[in-house]
Amino acid sequence: MKRTVFFVSDHTAITAETFGRSLLSQFEHIEFERITQPFVDCEAKAQDLCRRITEAYARDGQAPLVFSTLTDERLRHILKDSEAVVFDLFEAFLDRMETTLGQPSAQAIGRAHGLGNATLGRGRVEALKFAIDCDDGVGLDAYDKADIILIGVSRSGKTPACLFLALHYGIKAANYPLTDEDLKLSGLPANLRLHRKRLFGLTMTPERLHQLREERRPTSRYASLDQCRNEIRAAEALFRSAGIPYLDTSTMSVEEIAANILHHSGLKRVRW
Amino acid sequence: MKRTVFFVSDHTAITAETFGRSLLSQFEHIEFERITQPFVDCEAKAQDLCRRITEAYARDGQAPLVFSTLTDERLRHILKDSEAVVFDLFEAFLDRMETTLGQPSAQAIGRAHGLGNATLGRGRVEALKFAIDCDDGVGLDAYDKADIILIGVSRSGKTPACLFLALHYGIKAANYPLTDEDLKLSGLPANLRLHRKRLFGLTMTPERLHQLREERRPTSRYASLDQCRNEIRAAEALFRSAGIPYLDTSTMSVEEIAANILHHSGLKRVRW
Repeated sequence: MKRTVFFVSDHTAITAETFGRSLLSQFEHIEFERITQPFVDCEAKAQDLCRRITEAYARDGQAPLVFSTLTDERLRHILKDSEAVVFDLFEAFLDRMETTLGQPSAQAIGRAHGLGNATLGRGRVEALKFAIDCDDGVGLDAYDKADIILIGVSRSGKTPACLFLALHYGIKAANYPLTDEDLKLSGLPANLRLHRKRLFGLTMTPERLHQLREERRPTSRYASLDQCRNEIRAAEALFRSAGIPYLDTSTMSVEEIAANILHHSGLKRVRW
Repeated sequence: MKRTVFFVSDHTAITAETFGRSLLSQFEHIEFERITQPFVDCEAKAQDLCRRITEAYARDGQAPLVFSTLTDERLRHILKDSEAVVFDLFEAFLDRMETTLGQPSAQAIGRAHGLGNATLGRGRVEALKFAIDCDDGVGLDAYDKADIILIGVSRSGKTPACLFLALHYGIKAANYPLTDEDLKLSGLPANLRLHRKRLFGLTMTPERLHQLREERRPTSRYASLDQCRNEIRAAEALFRSAGIPYLDTSTMSVEEIAANILHHSGLKRVRW
């Protein structure tokens, strides 16, 4: 059982993908063929999309689903006349928003797409640069400018979390890998002691760490379950004894890790 | 005129923020106070949220707006009984999706949030590592593994675009800065000639580049409008003569740049 799904937008389609994906995730046992169609910003492109919908219908024997954030009324009408079942974000909510806010909506192409110029704004670009400059234990001199410093053993997911914190929330996050040598010390490595209040630990089950390390260096001592157990045990003991908040990321995506860190640290994101 | 807006989720709230932001962007002249409330996953937290809604109502003298992706029915009912105007993604679409797909929805907490574990999947983490290792003209040895190589003058937005391509689409993007010396050559720098088919140019108006460079090094020759004009002219001439597709990013956010690159290059994203 296969259904074709289109994510349609006059712009990047990131919003259409996000809300559509969220809804689709509630339906298991169905295989979805996902097609993203951004930049549908004129009638010709909307009609071309309708042709692709007709083809998908013929192929699947079932109506495709469309998640749409089209803003222009003419384009929305063209799509509505297609053979797809259309889930239209603006149709669903805009009327009630207009009533609530006592104002007509702009229905302007391109404005509807969220992050907008905020993202190229100084805050986020600076935070990204910071994350790159302070990745994996380098850039220690700049730690006093960090909003947060993630610490954890190798492969505990520090780098993606730092980049996501920067890109999505504009937060300056450094990361420092806890090495075998660090974990043999009693207490925090000297580099980190000055910054204790900004430290945040990442951990996971030894089994998950083993799995991730096996992907990098199969059958190495580094990846062995024993080694993973020892490192995780020592890292968690350090977090507890030094009073560092920490998060078990075993089953988390990078978005979840970043949102949890933001939530638990009380950090303020760059305004969006 | 100020209205308080809550983005509410039992999970990261990224979906709630994205769809809410998209809708709010259609209303100008209203100042919104934005509050994100992730991880509302029990009745106590839902009731606490209702108290904060009541407080906001008293403060603003107007009903707050709530954009919600709560999945649990009990929690949704608690929120619905609050004093806010609730825009509930699942209520708006789930019935019709169930009818269309001929299946009940899972209504499962945490599953509703899109990117899910895909994001920590190997593809994206590898792509991120690639983007960091091949940032700003380093890692040339690895260029044959790149899906795409962004080129442009300093401050043309290459690094954020590469990281976004990696994090959001799982695409391995390197970036190479076109220096004064590179631009004096006739034709592509030697480093890039082998990879012509994978090159993609970023450009912008000299005025915009000037503005960005002024932020980094005010009143320098590097930032002067003359210098920006010369570099942009030379870079665009190179793109055209070498047959390299390119994009004017002057008014684009990093999301827009990445979505445009994906769209115009025909690259395939990592499956999500």
